[in-house]
Amino acid sequence: MGTASVPPKTGPLVTPERVRAARSLAAEAGTDLLVLTPGSDLRYLTGYDAHAMERLTALAVPSAGEPFLVVPRLEAPMVDVSPAGALGLEMLAWDETDDPFALLAGAATARLGAAPTRVAVGARTWAEHALGVQRALPGSTLELAGPVLDRLRMVKSAAEIEELALAGAAIDRVHARMAEFLTVGRTEAAIGADIAAAILEEGHVGVDFTIVGSGPNGASPHHELSDRVVQAGDVVVIDIGGETATGYRSDCTRTYVVGGDAEPDVAEWYAVLHAAQQASVAAVRPGVTAAQVDAAARDVIAGAGWGEHFIHRTGHGIGLDSHEAPYIVAGNDLPLVPGMAFSVEPGIYLPGRCGARIEDIVVCTEDGVRSLNGGPRELVELPG
Amino acid sequence: MGTASVPPKTGPLVTPERVRAARSLAAEAGTDLLVLTPGSDLRYLTGYDAHAMERLTALAVPSAGEPFLVVPRLEAPMVDVSPAGALGLEMLAWDETDDPFALLAGAATARLGAAPTRVAVGARTWAEHALGVQRALPGSTLELAGPVLDRLRMVKSAAEIEELALAGAAIDRVHARMAEFLTVGRTEAAIGADIAAAILEEGHVGVDFTIVGSGPNGASPHHELSDRVVQAGDVVVIDIGGETATGYRSDCTRTYVVGGDAEPDVAEWYAVLHAAQQASVAAVRPGVTAAQVDAAARDVIAGAGWGEHFIHRTGHGIGLDSHEAPYIVAGNDLPLVPGMAFSVEPGIYLPGRCGARIEDIVVCTEDGVRSLNGGPRELVELPG
Repeated sequence: MGTASVPPKTGPLVTPERVRAARSLAAEAGTDLLVLTPGSDLRYLTGYDAHAMERLTALAVPSAGEPFLVVPRLEAPMVDVSPAGALGLEMLAWDETDDPFALLAGAATARLGAAPTRVAVGARTWAEHALGVQRALPGSTLELAGPVLDRLRMVKSAAEIEELALAGAAIDRVHARMAEFLTVGRTEAAIGADIAAAILEEGHVGVDFTIVGSGPNGASPHHELSDRVVQAGDVVVIDIGGETATGYRSDCTRTYVVGGDAEPDVAEWYAVLHAAQQASVAAVRPGVTAAQVDAAARDVIAGAGWGEHFIHRTGHGIGLDSHEAPYIVAGNDLPLVPGMAFSVEPGIYLPGRCGARIEDIVVCTEDGVRSLNGGPRELVELPG
Repeated sequence: MGTASVPPKTGPLVTPERVRAARSLAAEAGTDLLVLTPGSDLRYLTGYDAHAMERLTALAVPSAGEPFLVVPRLEAPMVDVSPAGALGLEMLAWDETDDPFALLAGAATARLGAAPTRVAVGARTWAEHALGVQRALPGSTLELAGPVLDRLRMVKSAAEIEELALAGAAIDRVHARMAEFLTVGRTEAAIGADIAAAILEEGHVGVDFTIVGSGPNGASPHHELSDRVVQAGDVVVIDIGGETATGYRSDCTRTYVVGGDAEPDVAEWYAVLHAAQQASVAAVRPGVTAAQVDAAARDVIAGAGWGEHFIHRTGHGIGLDSHEAPYIVAGNDLPLVPGMAFSVEPGIYLPGRCGARIEDIVVCTEDGVRSLNGGPRELVELPG
């Protein structure tokens, strides 16, 4: 005998206030019903870290009446032992041959006194779930809950920043061990496997990505791993990140040169990149826009004549997702406020030859910026 | 110098015929445009195993004119070296400040000679991408590409069945080593970590899930891991699966009793479960419906008086996704055809006490059924 004992993964991180805030922002925007499915939105609001699957699990937040969860009956025990169980949300369990969309639509209509017409779904809700809700509410129009959820999630609490800082320190420890993994004669795939093991050893519960871009592969920013063998003198981009027990993410890039000197011109353009990354971090403070932080890096690189080689935005927000709002990109006139956390990661890419990128996670503070990563931003020389 | 060298993960598995078949089925259904985003649908049709992220990557298949890919420019090199590069699909690359939805809508409209009005998106396409496409095609209605893709994907080719057989043999080797991991005094979490490592050692590139449901936790079918310590005489449900290099999945459940005898009644109802699983597998042959395969298991369990303890469907299809069509559930009158692959996994759950489940992946053949898992289906006794 006994009861199931899954330790809740969160404590002060998830509060009933979050669902209330989401309801209030959605109502302000004229939305009748928010529907959020497994993923970081649901985890943020309820602490329930559900797996995305074909069976519908959803948090429904009508603009009037109490929010509720729709859950497959066989997963109801998992909700009860998650932090969501402590929030006191009503749970509507459905059996395998029930229609969960009809259940959701009926319960929302009952709370609202009429069928909702404007329904907002999570940005990453699967189309089959979004369209399933819409079919069950004929005449409703679908919109994205992104603006509401982004507004809540992109400004981190002190407790969330602490989690991101722990994640940053964890990935820094992996970079500090890079000489163990990155040596001449090994394949990117072998190096990546060792890095993945180190990510888990150093304080993460999951590996999000292991980019080992050696030599010419470093010129493809999202290259991951290949069977290419690292050569003496290679410039190698290492961009790695993982998930901690509370769901918060790490993401840090350093560029290495291994087993010999890089070609002579590398120092010159790497210095441009380094200056650009420093300028972008230094630009972060309340009131500055995301676009201005992007421009701070881009202007340095373009001013030195390397603009065409910096082929991506400067950064992305980070939290329960590796990539989330705010995006640090031209055209995003969102003013930064204290608590926003994002990457600053300019790069220079020379197709067919090599690339370099420097990435830190930073937080906008009351009076400037705090970096959550340490370690050298210079080109790191490893013996190989 | 040199070029990036990512080994294509697929060969005979991905053929140009697949995209043509999707177009033809979509046209039959009256759909003007199919839009498929990263995930198994895209991988099935093109071999491109892209990560789902906020930047739009999509295969667009208009009912007239050539299909094309919309890809963030910084990921274009990854498409080129994937099997998709060999398919000769036109690639439209977009830069960070472009609108990829407008790009997609414009190219599809040009091919069709008019804006598409019926647009089908992948079942697991993110809402922000589905609604982004719809916004760029005012007046269009969204529907799901699921029926088209399911029809293609659920009937496996001989090459795909071989991949599933390799995955099945790999997960069987993990179950065969269970005495190494599952011992009295260890936590489910520690056992699960060892199983995860073994899944990777035995021929997978990723771990999909590690369910260790010991004692009362076994009564929650989707329980994963906890800090509960395994006790002598515990009945333990072990349901594990992973992803192989070609993307095909394994999924196999065995139930163990560890370090002593189970309580005396367990043998009685476990025998019912065993008979039910055998009856369900034996029911598989062309022309029998998915619902009939479910009923074959359910009738045995209900007939013995345990019906209320079998609280989920009997199975789900498997391929590039762990769960896909066909679902083996009451109400699904789909007739089986040779090449369909799915799980047969009835269970009996006693809340607060324990549970048991037996799961094999099977394939419908020309004249019956082939099981892709081996090993004992009996309650497996481990010394503990």
